[in-house]
Amino acid sequence: MSQFWSKIVNDLTPYVPGEQPRVTNLVKLNTNECPYPPSPQVLDSIKEATNGNLRLYPDPDSSQLKAAISQYFSDTTGTSISSSNVFIGNGSDEVLAHTFQALFKHDLPLLFPDISYSFYPVYCNLYKIDSKLIPLTDDFSIDIEDYAIPNGGIIIPNPNAPTGCALPLSAIKTLLQRNPNSVVAIDEAYVDFGADTAASLITQYPNLLVIQTLSKSRSLAGLRVGFAMGNEQLIEGLVRVKDSFNSYPLDRLAIAGATASIEDKKYFEETCAKVIATREYLIGQLNALGFSVLPSAANFVFCSHNAITADVIAAQLRTHNIIVRHFKQPRIDNYLRISIGTNEEIKTLLDALEIILPL
Amino acid sequence: MSQFWSKIVNDLTPYVPGEQPRVTNLVKLNTNECPYPPSPQVLDSIKEATNGNLRLYPDPDSSQLKAAISQYFSDTTGTSISSSNVFIGNGSDEVLAHTFQALFKHDLPLLFPDISYSFYPVYCNLYKIDSKLIPLTDDFSIDIEDYAIPNGGIIIPNPNAPTGCALPLSAIKTLLQRNPNSVVAIDEAYVDFGADTAASLITQYPNLLVIQTLSKSRSLAGLRVGFAMGNEQLIEGLVRVKDSFNSYPLDRLAIAGATASIEDKKYFEETCAKVIATREYLIGQLNALGFSVLPSAANFVFCSHNAITADVIAAQLRTHNIIVRHFKQPRIDNYLRISIGTNEEIKTLLDALEIILPL
Repeated sequence: MSQFWSKIVNDLTPYVPGEQPRVTNLVKLNTNECPYPPSPQVLDSIKEATNGNLRLYPDPDSSQLKAAISQYFSDTTGTSISSSNVFIGNGSDEVLAHTFQALFKHDLPLLFPDISYSFYPVYCNLYKIDSKLIPLTDDFSIDIEDYAIPNGGIIIPNPNAPTGCALPLSAIKTLLQRNPNSVVAIDEAYVDFGADTAASLITQYPNLLVIQTLSKSRSLAGLRVGFAMGNEQLIEGLVRVKDSFNSYPLDRLAIAGATASIEDKKYFEETCAKVIATREYLIGQLNALGFSVLPSAANFVFCSHNAITADVIAAQLRTHNIIVRHFKQPRIDNYLRISIGTNEEIKTLLDALEIILPL
Repeated sequence: MSQFWSKIVNDLTPYVPGEQPRVTNLVKLNTNECPYPPSPQVLDSIKEATNGNLRLYPDPDSSQLKAAISQYFSDTTGTSISSSNVFIGNGSDEVLAHTFQALFKHDLPLLFPDISYSFYPVYCNLYKIDSKLIPLTDDFSIDIEDYAIPNGGIIIPNPNAPTGCALPLSAIKTLLQRNPNSVVAIDEAYVDFGADTAASLITQYPNLLVIQTLSKSRSLAGLRVGFAMGNEQLIEGLVRVKDSFNSYPLDRLAIAGATASIEDKKYFEETCAKVIATREYLIGQLNALGFSVLPSAANFVFCSHNAITADVIAAQLRTHNIIVRHFKQPRIDNYLRISIGTNEEIKTLLDALEIILPL
């Protein structure tokens, strides 16, 4: 505490991201990064933009990137999505922060799952947003009947994290239809690994905001680019907050690299397919080793062992130079979240588990 | 207005940055960018960092950059500044936003000059911070006696923008001593072009925050990097807000490029010297053309003509493909802010002015 702090600072409980170790000899399966590098076209575009023009401010609207995103989603969803339906931010965390401030501060509480992205309660605390946590069912899935209560907004990750479980689009449609006066935000950080994007619904539902990131399926966690898609009114609300905070959230290199990434559809699809194949292999092997694994539509699995507690397994894996994520949180403290690595990394993990676990 | 917006969104009056034209054949003297490219070492470092590791999250603390900044200021000020005295943000606009939220929301009003960086009132509006504008004197300078009133904080750009006028360190010391219970923030975006940094004072005054950017004197407006220096308690307040907003504000390329820029002291000093020499030449020529020019310690000049109004000159210059900045704001609506370009750009400007202005 300090006399110089605004009162709000005393009450903050900042988000704690997964460890980013300085040493490089680790098998890093703790922060859901993609094990494959970004598209070669991304690297080429960034190098091309690395020139004397860095002396000039970037385009405050990231227009080139908005055009690429609206084109991509128009093509893949068959819905007409324009640049005015797209909002760009410095990672989807910044997009989420602006969403909470611009769209979720109302008299009625914001609803989100009790087990979900742990940044949500942090944003609520930062912006003094009233919230109500809706418990997942006993099998860790989302029952949308539990959301049929008065609310000032709903945010749900699809697939959910850290569980990896996906909701069908029909359930999201029901949520949208039941809550015409609330914003329903679908946080699709992991959607490309097995769930259906709700992007096709934004022209039908003015209360829908879809949020995505380039950090996972596009191998660009290090470039910090996220975006939202929605009705123009929702996007305008976000823009008003963004332009009251920081006019230029994306640098010239991020705009160049992200645009190239969205444009290289083939590389993206191949990468996702490889991750999915490795995930299915890993799930089979984990089951054989005595783990219960939740159904995953993400680039990670969430699992629990029938004999050894999760904290012990995580600590033991660390002695084998393997990091996975363990959340000391009610209901899930006996679970591990394991990011999908390369086939080689997953073999290293399985070899270590065979040593650690009882026969 | 939209039913979906949080109430606060309706009241926002977003900041309007200087125009970033899409056409490239303009002499762009409107947003105080550096006319010279960044150091070749910056470009090399970025290219080196453009590799497969972009799939991994960046260091959330930008430790490498903090170390370079603390080393640089320790060396140049003779004061022991450590990484724990440094806060990094996505451009100094983001650093300012966090500063307003973390350190300036108190019962007493925040004080800043009536003619100053026009983002300050926008932040006050976003975070509902009570503020009091202190008028510049008739010659557009800051008289610190005018700040001797109860306050919840003070923020002053040094040199001020858009006037370019600098305060001596002795005046800043007086402000710090008179306000031991308030944070005094010195926004040093333009300090390297002729004013003295207050960085040497941060170990003596726990209420001092010094904010700088790499956008001007380091030719990196396109990379979005700013930082603050101050007592560890102030930095901790900023970190708590940052970690409740976005864990990773700087991408891997920005960290690499910014670090190389801070480390290339020679290139930086040469660039500043060239800009200052051009500025002094421009001031002499503008005086000869009938302009009154305020004394400038920045990379721009603020001037008014004795016969033609500023809006007319700005419009005429635009027809010559030259953009300067004109603020439609009380007290300064007959002034132009002209960024210092290359010698060639300044000659183009002066040639155009000779055509536009009466003999």
